[in-house]
Amino acid sequence: MWEQRYALRTKQMKSSAIRDLLTITEQPNVISFAGGLPAPEVFPVAEVGSIVQKILQNNGAQALQYGATEGYFPLRSLIAQRYSSAELKLTADNVLITTGSQQALDLLGKLFIDPGKQVVIEEPTYLGALQAWNAYGAQYLTVPIDEQGMLVEELESRLQDQPGWIYALPNFQNPSGTTLSLARRQRLIELAMHYQVPVIEDDPYGELRFSGEPLPPLLHLAATTNTTASELPIIYLGTFSKVLAPGLRVGWMIGPQQVISKLAQAKQGVDLNTATLNQMIAYEMMQSGFLQEHIKGICAQYRIRRDSMLEALTRYFPQTAQWSKPDGGLFIWATLPQGIDSKALLSQAIRQKVAFVPGSAFYANGGGENTMRLNFSNATPKLIQEGIARLGQLLQTLPEMATILSPVS
Amino acid sequence: MWEQRYALRTKQMKSSAIRDLLTITEQPNVISFAGGLPAPEVFPVAEVGSIVQKILQNNGAQALQYGATEGYFPLRSLIAQRYSSAELKLTADNVLITTGSQQALDLLGKLFIDPGKQVVIEEPTYLGALQAWNAYGAQYLTVPIDEQGMLVEELESRLQDQPGWIYALPNFQNPSGTTLSLARRQRLIELAMHYQVPVIEDDPYGELRFSGEPLPPLLHLAATTNTTASELPIIYLGTFSKVLAPGLRVGWMIGPQQVISKLAQAKQGVDLNTATLNQMIAYEMMQSGFLQEHIKGICAQYRIRRDSMLEALTRYFPQTAQWSKPDGGLFIWATLPQGIDSKALLSQAIRQKVAFVPGSAFYANGGGENTMRLNFSNATPKLIQEGIARLGQLLQTLPEMATILSPVS
Repeated sequence: MWEQRYALRTKQMKSSAIRDLLTITEQPNVISFAGGLPAPEVFPVAEVGSIVQKILQNNGAQALQYGATEGYFPLRSLIAQRYSSAELKLTADNVLITTGSQQALDLLGKLFIDPGKQVVIEEPTYLGALQAWNAYGAQYLTVPIDEQGMLVEELESRLQDQPGWIYALPNFQNPSGTTLSLARRQRLIELAMHYQVPVIEDDPYGELRFSGEPLPPLLHLAATTNTTASELPIIYLGTFSKVLAPGLRVGWMIGPQQVISKLAQAKQGVDLNTATLNQMIAYEMMQSGFLQEHIKGICAQYRIRRDSMLEALTRYFPQTAQWSKPDGGLFIWATLPQGIDSKALLSQAIRQKVAFVPGSAFYANGGGENTMRLNFSNATPKLIQEGIARLGQLLQTLPEMATILSPVS
Repeated sequence: MWEQRYALRTKQMKSSAIRDLLTITEQPNVISFAGGLPAPEVFPVAEVGSIVQKILQNNGAQALQYGATEGYFPLRSLIAQRYSSAELKLTADNVLITTGSQQALDLLGKLFIDPGKQVVIEEPTYLGALQAWNAYGAQYLTVPIDEQGMLVEELESRLQDQPGWIYALPNFQNPSGTTLSLARRQRLIELAMHYQVPVIEDDPYGELRFSGEPLPPLLHLAATTNTTASELPIIYLGTFSKVLAPGLRVGWMIGPQQVISKLAQAKQGVDLNTATLNQMIAYEMMQSGFLQEHIKGICAQYRIRRDSMLEALTRYFPQTAQWSKPDGGLFIWATLPQGIDSKALLSQAIRQKVAFVPGSAFYANGGGENTMRLNFSNATPKLIQEGIARLGQLLQTLPEMATILSPVS
């Protein structure tokens, strides 16, 4: 009685690679570079505990009750204040609290995508965005990336037919780990303004920078030429998942008030409001200044793990492989010699009890067969060394590698 | 740059009556019968506090981490166990945890509704369901209700053209407060099986019964004739919002495994998973037996409030008005004489600092202008008396009432 009823949607939602991979991750003794999980060691468990007590004692009835769809007002105000700049004056009306950043992606799809609608994405890009938008029937115009992020010179040709938006992850991109350079950020904004195509700036990792100098978000770069928030061509997505705890499911969107108001209307039909207690936890953590200090600790840990993985890659991976050197975030992107299929490699790797995500999962329109995403945040340096060593050994034994290393003359 | 992009969706989502009304509710000194809010006095604030401490101490890393999209396994298992019966053996695979019941409604829309798809609903019905499904372009076939719930004899004619589902709220329906009789439940299942149309059984209030005998859920009635869970024609929606705390945003869906699996796939793109900590709170409350005892306390409080409102209606409302006498739940439904417009009444009532929801908000295809939904859970008996007295006085002064009471002969 059920099958014929969801044929269409099922086809649109067939990609569930992340979920299947999380299942592998949960197997005991697997060294997993597959997920995008924060290190549990850095969760501020005790602080969450004492803040929950404080909230419940002072404000228990509000914390456990329904709340406004737009979110907990003090949290919205605080986020508005934090992202305001000399050129950009934001208020709570510019902020919608979401049930994690993933919900922001879904709400954007619900409001703006009808079947067949084209949107511009980086290639590769965040798999969760594809999953959210596939369900609405999105089509993708892709722009390749290099070590400085999106190849903005290739963007212009994608903007001719008024796509729905440009989706950009400027900082420590998922999956590639690359950061969009300042010159490219400026050019991207120019093009967006010229062609009147909005930009979705997804920035879950921006505060997790371990090296190099911070770059301004597109949100601020756009504001220098365009002073009122209502004319902003940007919707900025942020989240507490990577800097506090993903299990809380609290994120935010910043944008023009009239768009935020429509998105809130969409959210009302989706989950009424984000868990009130959780929003209050995030607010207290942010308001007290604890969060800023806490982020420094996360960065210190992750820097060690990134350095450990880069060192292990140099030691164990073949010289014919290449990989990104991210200044922050959670991921390194490795490119194997042409001809190596990282999907096939994964099934062998799992037998060796080590996992990663084949890069092709992040390509909307196919490609990337010889690439892989390696997460360095969720494993200790010791396990990183061991896991990369196993992958390196596996690569050395591949018949394809032999061909590449000593081609038949 | 934004406006032209969301014209279509905006039209589909224009109804935001609940949200506008929640805004009114938040004004100081308004006696509100408008929302569907639980009484904050019954929230188990101290127990939530001590359970959070226990969870964080024993399992902090898991509570703050991403979790499986399907939900926290022990909670899914416990819910499966609780809803299993002699005829129906459920496992965790039959259960999906949702971010409140509202998310369940959204996921159903995402998986099963394409623009123009018809679904059968009760008239009046839950406004949040209409908001969720309007966004997907649903059309509604309505079945009227009387004091025994949906008029099942009128259902058959709505099933001829293979609608997507029958949406039923069998217990203390929102908004009407009515309960579907056993005979009608059985006939509804027969019709659903005969016409092979699934049933969405939405049961947020079933455990909040203050009088009369409990009736079996459609889920169990369907299982007596149809023994395997995979053939079940029912998706059952439950929530912790009304029996524990809506601010946690934890609900559940029960259904055939293959449908639950598709819904989980849809949920992955929507919010990855429901907040882990919150699921663990709900699990601990349920597993320890605390929740069952706690529900008895809620029922005792709500019975007093229902009785107070029924008594006040008899005392203050005109004899030409009628209202439901619910055996549980949160709502009383009042029908005023024909010719009285409850929307116009509301604007006058707000000046008298009392609020309710005009019944027409719950009609998908128009109607119900002379009806109103009165919530009794969120105000104390003293305020209930005062608020109903104000509404009663207002009704006495309406020119339309004068016409009705002494018609021009």
